[in-house]
Amino acid sequence: MASVKIAVIGGGSAYTAGLIDSFVQVAGDLAGSEIVLMDIDPGHLSIIERLGRRMIEAAGADLILRTTLNRREAIQDADFVLIQFRIGGLPARRLDEHLPLKYGIIGQETVGPGGMFMALRTIPVVLEIAQEMKRLAPRGLLINYTNPTGIVTEALHRYSDVRMLGLCDEIYGIRRIMGQVLGVEAARIVIYAYGLNHASWGRHLWVDGKEAMAELQSRIPFVSREDFPDSKSWSVIRLFKLYGFIANRYLRYYYFHDEMLEEARQAPLSRAEEILASLPEIFASYEEQSRQPLPHLVKRRGTGAHGDLAVRVINAIANDQPEVYLVNVVNRGAVSNLPPDSIVEVPARVGREGVFPLVMGPLPGEVAGLVQSLKSYELQVVEAAITGSRSQALKAMLSNPLVQSVGRAEKLLDEMLAAHKEYLPQFRAAGG
Amino acid sequence: MASVKIAVIGGGSAYTAGLIDSFVQVAGDLAGSEIVLMDIDPGHLSIIERLGRRMIEAAGADLILRTTLNRREAIQDADFVLIQFRIGGLPARRLDEHLPLKYGIIGQETVGPGGMFMALRTIPVVLEIAQEMKRLAPRGLLINYTNPTGIVTEALHRYSDVRMLGLCDEIYGIRRIMGQVLGVEAARIVIYAYGLNHASWGRHLWVDGKEAMAELQSRIPFVSREDFPDSKSWSVIRLFKLYGFIANRYLRYYYFHDEMLEEARQAPLSRAEEILASLPEIFASYEEQSRQPLPHLVKRRGTGAHGDLAVRVINAIANDQPEVYLVNVVNRGAVSNLPPDSIVEVPARVGREGVFPLVMGPLPGEVAGLVQSLKSYELQVVEAAITGSRSQALKAMLSNPLVQSVGRAEKLLDEMLAAHKEYLPQFRAAGG
Amino acid sequence: MASVKIAVIGGGSAYTAGLIDSFVQVAGDLAGSEIVLMDIDPGHLSIIERLGRRMIEAAGADLILRTTLNRREAIQDADFVLIQFRIGGLPARRLDEHLPLKYGIIGQETVGPGGMFMALRTIPVVLEIAQEMKRLAPRGLLINYTNPTGIVTEALHRYSDVRMLGLCDEIYGIRRIMGQVLGVEAARIVIYAYGLNHASWGRHLWVDGKEAMAELQSRIPFVSREDFPDSKSWSVIRLFKLYGFIANRYLRYYYFHDEMLEEARQAPLSRAEEILASLPEIFASYEEQSRQPLPHLVKRRGTGAHGDLAVRVINAIANDQPEVYLVNVVNRGAVSNLPPDSIVEVPARVGREGVFPLVMGPLPGEVAGLVQSLKSYELQVVEAAITGSRSQALKAMLSNPLVQSVGRAEKLLDEMLAAHKEYLPQFRAAGG
Amino acid sequence: MASVKIAVIGGGSAYTAGLIDSFVQVAGDLAGSEIVLMDIDPGHLSIIERLGRRMIEAAGADLILRTTLNRREAIQDADFVLIQFRIGGLPARRLDEHLPLKYGIIGQETVGPGGMFMALRTIPVVLEIAQEMKRLAPRGLLINYTNPTGIVTEALHRYSDVRMLGLCDEIYGIRRIMGQVLGVEAARIVIYAYGLNHASWGRHLWVDGKEAMAELQSRIPFVSREDFPDSKSWSVIRLFKLYGFIANRYLRYYYFHDEMLEEARQAPLSRAEEILASLPEIFASYEEQSRQPLPHLVKRRGTGAHGDLAVRVINAIANDQPEVYLVNVVNRGAVSNLPPDSIVEVPARVGREGVFPLVMGPLPGEVAGLVQSLKSYELQVVEAAITGSRSQALKAMLSNPLVQSVGRAEKLLDEMLAAHKEYLPQFRAAGG
Repeated sequence: MASVKIAVIGGGSAYTAGLIDSFVQVAGDLAGSEIVLMDIDPGHLSIIERLGRRMIEAAGADLILRTTLNRREAIQDADFVLIQFRIGGLPARRLDEHLPLKYGIIGQETVGPGGMFMALRTIPVVLEIAQEMKRLAPRGLLINYTNPTGIVTEALHRYSDVRMLGLCDEIYGIRRIMGQVLGVEAARIVIYAYGLNHASWGRHLWVDGKEAMAELQSRIPFVSREDFPDSKSWSVIRLFKLYGFIANRYLRYYYFHDEMLEEARQAPLSRAEEILASLPEIFASYEEQSRQPLPHLVKRRGTGAHGDLAVRVINAIANDQPEVYLVNVVNRGAVSNLPPDSIVEVPARVGREGVFPLVMGPLPGEVAGLVQSLKSYELQVVEAAITGSRSQALKAMLSNPLVQSVGRAEKLLDEMLAAHKEYLPQFRAAGG
Repeated sequence: MASVKIAVIGGGSAYTAGLIDSFVQVAGDLAGSEIVLMDIDPGHLSIIERLGRRMIEAAGADLILRTTLNRREAIQDADFVLIQFRIGGLPARRLDEHLPLKYGIIGQETVGPGGMFMALRTIPVVLEIAQEMKRLAPRGLLINYTNPTGIVTEALHRYSDVRMLGLCDEIYGIRRIMGQVLGVEAARIVIYAYGLNHASWGRHLWVDGKEAMAELQSRIPFVSREDFPDSKSWSVIRLFKLYGFIANRYLRYYYFHDEMLEEARQAPLSRAEEILASLPEIFASYEEQSRQPLPHLVKRRGTGAHGDLAVRVINAIANDQPEVYLVNVVNRGAVSNLPPDSIVEVPARVGREGVFPLVMGPLPGEVAGLVQSLKSYELQVVEAAITGSRSQALKAMLSNPLVQSVGRAEKLLDEMLAAHKEYLPQFRAAGG
Repeated sequence: MASVKIAVIGGGSAYTAGLIDSFVQVAGDLAGSEIVLMDIDPGHLSIIERLGRRMIEAAGADLILRTTLNRREAIQDADFVLIQFRIGGLPARRLDEHLPLKYGIIGQETVGPGGMFMALRTIPVVLEIAQEMKRLAPRGLLINYTNPTGIVTEALHRYSDVRMLGLCDEIYGIRRIMGQVLGVEAARIVIYAYGLNHASWGRHLWVDGKEAMAELQSRIPFVSREDFPDSKSWSVIRLFKLYGFIANRYLRYYYFHDEMLEEARQAPLSRAEEILASLPEIFASYEEQSRQPLPHLVKRRGTGAHGDLAVRVINAIANDQPEVYLVNVVNRGAVSNLPPDSIVEVPARVGREGVFPLVMGPLPGEVAGLVQSLKSYELQVVEAAITGSRSQALKAMLSNPLVQSVGRAEKLLDEMLAAHKEYLPQFRAAGG
Repeated sequence: MASVKIAVIGGGSAYTAGLIDSFVQVAGDLAGSEIVLMDIDPGHLSIIERLGRRMIEAAGADLILRTTLNRREAIQDADFVLIQFRIGGLPARRLDEHLPLKYGIIGQETVGPGGMFMALRTIPVVLEIAQEMKRLAPRGLLINYTNPTGIVTEALHRYSDVRMLGLCDEIYGIRRIMGQVLGVEAARIVIYAYGLNHASWGRHLWVDGKEAMAELQSRIPFVSREDFPDSKSWSVIRLFKLYGFIANRYLRYYYFHDEMLEEARQAPLSRAEEILASLPEIFASYEEQSRQPLPHLVKRRGTGAHGDLAVRVINAIANDQPEVYLVNVVNRGAVSNLPPDSIVEVPARVGREGVFPLVMGPLPGEVAGLVQSLKSYELQVVEAAITGSRSQALKAMLSNPLVQSVGRAEKLLDEMLAAHKEYLPQFRAAGG
């Protein structure tokens, strides 16, 4: 019933189609709301706009969709500012994936030096948006969907005072895996995972509200590779066999480091290259659907989970529909063996009263060390992004558990700084 | 829809009528459930039983009500064990109220030396119940409504491993006061207060989900004594004027110590005496209503809040109706400047997944000291209740902020130990 | 062997004679050093100067003694700035002792509302000195001997960045008491007490380096009042009987509150009045001794401990004579159940490398609550001293465990604010 | 002047000659003391005995030297039990160095999987000794010199209640390096390094008691590889250039991981092989010197620092010669971002009153992550050593920052468990 204004920065992204789809599904609750898509790419933006309007119209939803190339216009008086963009686009991501590999280090969008450079490029822009919000939408909530979510949210915490939280839909995938093991639909499963974004562990799982960890523990030994041919899911099963907890899928980059490195080396295309290859087809499909009476996302970017999570969170806050979501917020003691004044990913009650993390206690000792060292790394990356200092960036890179070697770190750092220099104005200025 | 067994220990209490009333109101959600009232007083128990059955029948509720004098029978296979009794009854409470006064110290059911002795009498019995539950109802949840709730729950935490939480309906009264100031119904108000039971502070208040502390702060200066003639409510206003936060009403015993002492000295009857005087009439009324076609609680003990809270919490856990309640549970970091491994009163998400405290951060510095010293005191009282050592009891009494004087403490302690010795078997045994 | 400049602010105090005596005794280690006494009272200053020069000369000590009425001149290039003054002098202390008594509250130089007002008067001046040091003696160490030491040092920690520590010679008296119980000289005893200034507890005591707590515990039950007729010492014995630890003598104001209040009411003169009465004689004696070939402090203010401690600490730092002293410094984890970022009194290794607190662990639970609430109070007093806000001062007074009653606090506060207004410029300005 | 009994477990080690040399040098302070060397190798033990007696005699020292093959006899009534042995001897160390290399992982005595297996072999024996001490020498102090010191001391903390501390002389080498940079003798330098054994950082350095970090920072940029041709020392310089702090030399295995791995692969002999090759000559030299009127350690194992540190610590405690040493003890808040209830390496005041760590504050953020994850790893190793569980050992190995890959870890673990099985009885029993 609440009618709100939602700005989507990076609204020309292929992901936005799914986001609009999710909005359409809860349109009843958000009747009269206005969604403003902002992007720097007018071509993509206009395709998304046409498709979106068609979807809204076809569903008879009471939503207003607008687009703009002017960020401040989008932000003005917004109740929610959803950010989801990629500074440097997929070509920059391609570099993040490729350059580390030359040095025998995993290259990935959010993990390792790739994730670090994505953060270095992104943080200055996100902080600009936060500043604009203080002026133009002081009561608005910034919802950060921009990767690496944990680090970007940490930067917002340290260097802005905007109201904000960071989101990641990773848990939907993990629920699917656990659902398969338990023989129940993912929708019936609740998992409370906690730690850091892309480095969290779940010790609580319920099916229809009943604790089911014991059941899971009794089934896992009989789960085999054939059940989970895809290595991403299989890593979760393997880590459960070892630790008895539910691992975030991104933890495989640390625990199965050699295999992941080998996989990356063997892959004919990196992930960015795959996406780059698929985008024209996706946008063509969007284009085509925007002319259908009943448009469908026959091709799309991202699962339904991505949009659903953002829309449900907005709905929980805008209306009276409190629910527990995994969010990235200031710790303040929710995870007792991570620093209190830093961003963690934890279950939080999200409702119109605000976002209140649930107390989780400590991460188990056998997995805490890695997560603690990742937090340490994240804090160093934020400092590097702010100062634009090469020596600070070197410290950040060295504190990443996948690097840890001065020799490789220095060479890789300099190569990446050079390759991305267009998007790293702060490093040009600082010089140090 | 969940059908559960609920044992009420102390089921012959006059409060139970209201509790049954609350159960009847949510009977649809708990259809087929069994409520077993246990008490050591067969007379009162049988009146409550007759009244209860009448209420259930009249409402056409699908609930089974039974009574027993055998505690183990009540506990056997219970899903919830609600405890609400008073060791030594109102005569013991009368002593708790009177004896301290002789030494110029406030005598009260839960505060000061009176509360301490109530805890000394109660804790051994509560721990017995916890042990019985481990055997007879190992998956059951103990809901502690027995005063002093914070201390009794602390004892359960330290000396049993039963699943449990402590409840107190005090916040309902505070919501009413704030509602009066704001000109809105209490039901529209949510307050997140935290600290200790009867020593908590609220820094968040919402009306219909909208933050209303600023509104409150602007109205409070114009609130005058005539608006709140009753000193209990007025103390909340006065403390808000001073601190800008919402105080638990029991904090008046510390902040308006002199006035409360004077009030107690002037009072013709102590609270226990008043209740003792009113009980015959209440039970007579219950008796009479149990013969009516449509029974009403025309006279009763406690407001509707008492029963409602317990029933809502049971319902939240038994069915899928998660909500935030103020509960007494292990801190684990929810309140960062109280000890992590001790009981605090905090908002927690209560649902079928369990009870998860929300992270509150620190108590404000200007009020933290008193609360910290009360926690320290509570821990000493638990040790005294367990050891039955006079010297430990003396340390406990000295650590209470209302006592703090060895001379008075020793005399009062010995007088109270003697007066209550029938209900303090542990002190007879220990000798020291 | 180190030759240093030592500024003594409040150098005209009667205590200074003892201080110079202590310097003379270690003159060999500090040969060539310069002591500059600064005061606003030229009369007393000149008596002290004459006496001091005589003492130095008579001992053949290689020390230079100078005096000045200009504080900046004293501070300029000082290696150590020792502060020991009393804003408002003894007449102000007299008010601190008398006014609270009218409201049934203990009046004392450092404890309760008296101590609070001493802090309110002192902190602004001490912070001025700290600022002057940053400019005139940036590498100097401020040694705070000004009462209430703990609160004044806390203010320095929070509102200046001068290098500093706070001193109190109280432990010397406690060693004497324990020595009497054990039948050994105080000089052979080492006690590690910790907590807050005037609110510390000792759990470690050695005689000639051998742990002697067990011996002490076996003797204490046989110690009787006749052994310690003086109530100050006797309170330490009584608290040891109760808790098994060594209490700071000032804790008697809390644990024997009623008796202390009675004692104060009965006393013909308050402590300030006694001192005021004795000072003319002391200064006359100083005057007289300054004309003797071998001057002696036949009458003096303070024991030798006062000067000795300051001089030993200076010597430990200036020369290579590291030793453990009880000092007031930032906690940083030394006492685990007091806030890490606040001033505590702990044993610290003081040497030329600096001042490093020894890790003490937690205060025992049975005494921790009071000390925690005192720390809370101290922090409130500092805020009141800085802001000059009446409402903040009221919160500070209410958080003192000896007050805790809004009615009394408000009246007493206003009376004391009025009585001391000459020395509380910050309150005139603030108005609130 | 104190006369004590010192048991040396592993007294037949070639290191013992240097230890006796150190005792002889302070013999005046320990006149009349008895040193009992215990070993399982009677041949080496008898050579050391003859040499030791000759050294004592030649110096005219008032020390008694005895040997025994019976550990209990050595421990009986000992004031100090110094442990320095190698379960499995140098052949086992050789395996620790070689086996990891096959998997591309650094093999080292204390670092990585090699150090882990050294701990697995050592901990059960050390805990046996601790138990014997409780019976035979309850007031004795266990001084642990057995590597990996940090982990072995952690096991003692968790699984015994003997009085103990862990020592490591590594800082002597670092002082030498810093002395060379500053152009002063190492003996004039004091460094307060803290963190974990072999993973500590120094932020304080004094020359003759004067803070010299600024001086160091100004000189370090001009230091070049030619100044420090040896890679061990050069790593300290490189890390100082990067971080501005003084690194423990063992940190090079993490920060210069690739180079260290390459160095190990190129080395014609591993360190154990070198030592094995040199021992016959060393013992032959000991043999020969034991027949000289003035014996000299012309060939020896270890520098003088090894023996000196142990002897100085014993002397500091036995006599009144307090000093600050870097020791491995329970943290209790000394390093605020390492777990309070675990072993850290910190400066501590060691004296007859006991061992009191100095408060150090947090490790700097840019280096804290690695140290935290190493602590996490150490705790896992202790659990593995106690439980003898393969799956726990796998978790331990995975939590080591040099391993972190399930594939390699499993293979290496099984190979090492098999290779060392003679010395790992706990793993045979557990099976899991």
